[in-house]
Amino acid sequence: MNLQPRDPRFESRVRDSFARQRFMTTLGATLERVTPGEIAIAFTHREELTQQHGFLHAGVMTSVADSACGYAALSLMEAGAGVLSVEFKVNMLAPAVGDRFIATGRVVRSGRTLTVCTGEVTTGRDGETVTVLLMQATMMAVRGRPEVAD
Amino acid sequence: MNLQPRDPRFESRVRDSFARQRFMTTLGATLERVTPGEIAIAFTHREELTQQHGFLHAGVMTSVADSACGYAALSLMEAGAGVLSVEFKVNMLAPAVGDRFIATGRVVRSGRTLTVCTGEVTTGRDGETVTVLLMQATMMAVRGRPEVAD
Amino acid sequence: MNLQPRDPRFESRVRDSFARQRFMTTLGATLERVTPGEIAIAFTHREELTQQHGFLHAGVMTSVADSACGYAALSLMEAGAGVLSVEFKVNMLAPAVGDRFIATGRVVRSGRTLTVCTGEVTTGRDGETVTVLLMQATMMAVRGRPEVAD
Amino acid sequence: MNLQPRDPRFESRVRDSFARQRFMTTLGATLERVTPGEIAIAFTHREELTQQHGFLHAGVMTSVADSACGYAALSLMEAGAGVLSVEFKVNMLAPAVGDRFIATGRVVRSGRTLTVCTGEVTTGRDGETVTVLLMQATMMAVRGRPEVAD
Repeated sequence: MNLQPRDPRFESRVRDSFARQRFMTTLGATLERVTPGEIAIAFTHREELTQQHGFLHAGVMTSVADSACGYAALSLMEAGAGVLSVEFKVNMLAPAVGDRFIATGRVVRSGRTLTVCTGEVTTGRDGETVTVLLMQATMMAVRGRPEVAD
Repeated sequence: MNLQPRDPRFESRVRDSFARQRFMTTLGATLERVTPGEIAIAFTHREELTQQHGFLHAGVMTSVADSACGYAALSLMEAGAGVLSVEFKVNMLAPAVGDRFIATGRVVRSGRTLTVCTGEVTTGRDGETVTVLLMQATMMAVRGRPEVAD
Repeated sequence: MNLQPRDPRFESRVRDSFARQRFMTTLGATLERVTPGEIAIAFTHREELTQQHGFLHAGVMTSVADSACGYAALSLMEAGAGVLSVEFKVNMLAPAVGDRFIATGRVVRSGRTLTVCTGEVTTGRDGETVTVLLMQATMMAVRGRPEVAD
Repeated sequence: MNLQPRDPRFESRVRDSFARQRFMTTLGATLERVTPGEIAIAFTHREELTQQHGFLHAGVMTSVADSACGYAALSLMEAGAGVLSVEFKVNMLAPAVGDRFIATGRVVRSGRTLTVCTGEVTTGRDGETVTVLLMQATMMAVRGRPEVAD
């Protein structure tokens, strides 16, 4: 696996693109860490993001993990390419009970077209880090389509 | 597969539980159809739900499909049981371009503990119905935990 | 979705490639039906394919479903392209108890590079058709690599 | 996560059950390592396990990874329980070119009913370890059904 960024400006590119993800603003999610092939995004418990039992909706955690994986993939792509989610799978490991959550996306294979990532969402509980969601995802580099550039 | 609801009040139970999903309100999603083993939820394009290219974020479509599958599972459970998402996998089939979307969840196997569902998100385009997301999901019945009842 | 085969010789191409899958021979699997975008493969219960409880191993059913999805994808590709599995997800719906099984793969979206398929494995039980496995898969067209042509 | 085996005889139990998996014998797979919550299984390239391009069939790697995850889950279960695969998802990261492969399954969450595992298949290439498959799986403990005991 090559974790060398092909674009030296990868960090500002990820940050600029993330800032355009209106849905991340809606979720109150913020970029926590941008390194080549690994991205962390923070978010907090908010009433308007809950499901019927008062936990964070699985879709909220999945959405942030999807963005973390997508930007982990983008951080290794050359300038001009855009990133799209092809597919992902998540397992919920524990109820999303907590105040603050971190979604981390990591590239495990960076190909020319497809990038495979793993993601997880963790929270602190009783002084320990608990993983509440695990993701395995495929991202795609899009080229030559200006409307999908990042 | 038995699509007989074990709870004759399944419809009001699904509607009440859905009304408590604050995140569905945040997404502007509304229950469109409640039948035993099949649920449809409608939502529309809104700027605050987009990703960086202006399409709906994959997580938005996934979140509504997850709720549709969860309530499809719940619609067949006996009174007192609650539903939790165990895991799901989605494929994005087309960019989420459109004004109005329908997420449908269907039970394909209803076991005592686990329910397997398929979900899809569709939109109208040029007079045709286009499927933009496909989901395969596992839901779990939770019993004896009042804080997770539905 | 375009289910027009781009290669008029799609059927012999699928049959020739399937005949080269030595693993299908090892499993005793045979091509049952080849149509554009949909393939069926038959196999039977054999002791050497079982897991510890005497059921067919989940991996056997998955392997045949993977081949069915792969050839469903290939049946729509132009001459010269080869097919590789990118990823798949399966749910086991019922124990694989039965004498004869059919794995069916169907294309739900045929793109230039990626094809999304659904697959299932069914068997007869008490005069009814029971689905024992459900698959959602992504296949990839490979071009310009003679060692991966089909 | 509790990686304490509930059954002190976990190792012989895993080994006995594995020995009954006739399909693993068919694949030439052998138990390489049995520790609480982590299992490794070895297998080698054989012509009768290949797909049409001469690589190992994705289903072969998936089958061994499924067994590795299943036994990782079983290694933590109390005596008398049996294990069944609920679902799994795999990504193929590289063509399965190599002589010898190791499938490893690890428990990431061990619940009373459901166990979540990650799996991978690796091979040596040019003096390096290459991951060719990544799995995320859910296993289930079965109790009170003597025909599914392990």
